[in-house]
Amino acid sequence: MSSARTLAAKARRSATALAEASTELKNKALLAMADALEGAVDPVLRANALDVAGARRAGLSPSLIGRLQLDAGKVRRIAGSIRSIAALPDPVGRVLLERERPNGLKIRKIGVPIGVILIIYESRPNVTADCMALCLKSGNSVILKGGSESARSNRAIHGVLRRAAAKAGLPADAFGLITAGGRAAVAQLLKMNDLIDLVIPRGGEGLIRSVAAASRIPVIKHYKGVCHVYVAPGADPDKARRIAVNAKTHNPGVCNAMETLLVDRSVAGRLLPLIATDLAGKGVELRGDAEARRLVPSMKQARESDWPAEYLDLVLAVRVVDGMEAAIAHIRKYGSAHSDAIVTEDAAEAREFARRVDSACVFLNCSTRFNDGGEFGMGAEMGISTDKLHARGPMGLEELTSYKYVVTGDGQVRS
Amino acid sequence: MSSARTLAAKARRSATALAEASTELKNKALLAMADALEGAVDPVLRANALDVAGARRAGLSPSLIGRLQLDAGKVRRIAGSIRSIAALPDPVGRVLLERERPNGLKIRKIGVPIGVILIIYESRPNVTADCMALCLKSGNSVILKGGSESARSNRAIHGVLRRAAAKAGLPADAFGLITAGGRAAVAQLLKMNDLIDLVIPRGGEGLIRSVAAASRIPVIKHYKGVCHVYVAPGADPDKARRIAVNAKTHNPGVCNAMETLLVDRSVAGRLLPLIATDLAGKGVELRGDAEARRLVPSMKQARESDWPAEYLDLVLAVRVVDGMEAAIAHIRKYGSAHSDAIVTEDAAEAREFARRVDSACVFLNCSTRFNDGGEFGMGAEMGISTDKLHARGPMGLEELTSYKYVVTGDGQVRS
Repeated sequence: MSSARTLAAKARRSATALAEASTELKNKALLAMADALEGAVDPVLRANALDVAGARRAGLSPSLIGRLQLDAGKVRRIAGSIRSIAALPDPVGRVLLERERPNGLKIRKIGVPIGVILIIYESRPNVTADCMALCLKSGNSVILKGGSESARSNRAIHGVLRRAAAKAGLPADAFGLITAGGRAAVAQLLKMNDLIDLVIPRGGEGLIRSVAAASRIPVIKHYKGVCHVYVAPGADPDKARRIAVNAKTHNPGVCNAMETLLVDRSVAGRLLPLIATDLAGKGVELRGDAEARRLVPSMKQARESDWPAEYLDLVLAVRVVDGMEAAIAHIRKYGSAHSDAIVTEDAAEAREFARRVDSACVFLNCSTRFNDGGEFGMGAEMGISTDKLHARGPMGLEELTSYKYVVTGDGQVRS
Repeated sequence: MSSARTLAAKARRSATALAEASTELKNKALLAMADALEGAVDPVLRANALDVAGARRAGLSPSLIGRLQLDAGKVRRIAGSIRSIAALPDPVGRVLLERERPNGLKIRKIGVPIGVILIIYESRPNVTADCMALCLKSGNSVILKGGSESARSNRAIHGVLRRAAAKAGLPADAFGLITAGGRAAVAQLLKMNDLIDLVIPRGGEGLIRSVAAASRIPVIKHYKGVCHVYVAPGADPDKARRIAVNAKTHNPGVCNAMETLLVDRSVAGRLLPLIATDLAGKGVELRGDAEARRLVPSMKQARESDWPAEYLDLVLAVRVVDGMEAAIAHIRKYGSAHSDAIVTEDAAEAREFARRVDSACVFLNCSTRFNDGGEFGMGAEMGISTDKLHARGPMGLEELTSYKYVVTGDGQVRS
């Protein structure tokens, strides 16, 4: 048996003990893990410094190195995040539905863990801690497969947290980490549908596509976020400006940032120059269609390849559209069903957009940047799904559970 | 483009129109479909008679022919089932959650269709009508792939219902039927993850395993139902006898029938002879372990292969177990996580069983036969899932939907 398979088999065997762990024990373990991490800032930072030095030698991009690099403040924030997960309600055992049938049967639908969850991710060592804490709280065994660039940081964080969890009374084998073996190990893991119940890949589109294509295990994912803001005929100018600037520039490198601005022809003459000036003032490069460039001649010419692009940068595609129908058609054709917004004071326009745009999150008069577990009140998040099965939108603790029905009778039989 | 791919592409293109159809239009179409089917009893029965004759010539088993064969009463019951689906609440647009955030954002989680659903099934022509009606009501396009033995019946039912739906104003292409091409067509369909969102295989374990192994599309399924009844120390003798008889004999050919009876050693001497007499009186063949045979010498000897067996027949495996721990260990090792029951008047025993047995449905003092959409109050059902992602247990209209978040603001941006 390969070492990856041994590790997965151990995670599977530990799943029952974790599923049956009490809320009290899980929270005690989480708080001990947070304390242990704060007590291990120095060794974690030493390991991280070696990863960062290696990444520099390997010529990785500054943004990748930025995501990789830790400091004492970041480590303490990771510990804080673990404590906040301890404070969230336990999704295991929660009652999702309660119903009594005419024959007296009481039907309850109750949250249960999924089992064994494999997380495949790149760079950010904080994912190691977040995923361990979220899986623990939701009663799932976890197998972590991070990138080789962050192997030492992941091993350091994982080691500290796993020892603390085991000391608190949870099975150490429920927390697996694989740092060796690269793509071959991943390919092997993705075939273990007898041991692993769910795969969540987190990272760039290339990583996620390769995982989805190879996996024999169910995958929950989003490939990318090509998010739109549609400035509709009924838009309030100030809200349109504020939302466009926030959605594009608040954090341009993330999946819920706006990538395309759609402005209705009826208001484009009045609003687009104002919005363009705001965005240009924030350093955003605008790429417009012919009509947008007529109104704002300083824009670059957009090409067909700009409409489906996820820039993750201070670049924005801009298009003038003829009415709601054209806006929705554009979003359906080029969007990624991640986060799409309308700005309008017209309730009928907002309602139609909300009803017809089938994205994980549809925003009415607010920024696409709100597609986030924390902003939704879920606490920490495990990622964002644009799939339609099991979980869609931000994934928190509840999305890491399944359910079972418990039916209570008094001797009833079926007739 | 193959004909199967053309059909799937049309189903995909029709999905938006179906997703946007009003509840009123969908219900009007369903009632028209029920009427049309009742008006077409003769042609449907003529087509069915040809299928039945073909099945006889091909030497198919009497039970298979029984499932295939229709009569006027059965066709009218199918129409009645379509009417009952019209009467159910529309799962599309239902509000699953409503929450206001401290910044004033209103978050609503709203039911939406999944998209295009492929159903692969055997024999029973009523599945054609049930699946068309359930998918229509939940706003999903459907592709039906029935068995060749029921091709003429399926074509007749599908044709009548599809014409009625189109006449009512729904896109005819949203209702696809494939009767030709056999396994090759299925293999082709299972690769179309760009056009099809979900596969639900219904039929024998062999069919379902082959679909799950080949599919590039998410599959929701159960392989089999190896269901247990555990007669615990605290069991009421009358309830134990009634539940055991019902779970085994009410309809032995279905997935929620009991296949193994576990009797606690503390009550076996008193109860097992009574239960065995009841079951033998109903024509059940009992296969027991050594201890069960000591108490009821007329039992056959169970082999290791009896414990994981799904007999679907008047045969029952019987084992005497030493306490709850042994009962749960047996269920975990040999069960299929489908439907497992305990009989006990002891609330602590019931609670422990409910908490620790991780089956789709856990029954306390009632028959396993209640694992059924109708019995759960869901109306018609699409099948039963033992998977843990998306849907578990009976699948009704709500399980055929996904959701989206609609977030309403007043100009909020993220800070």
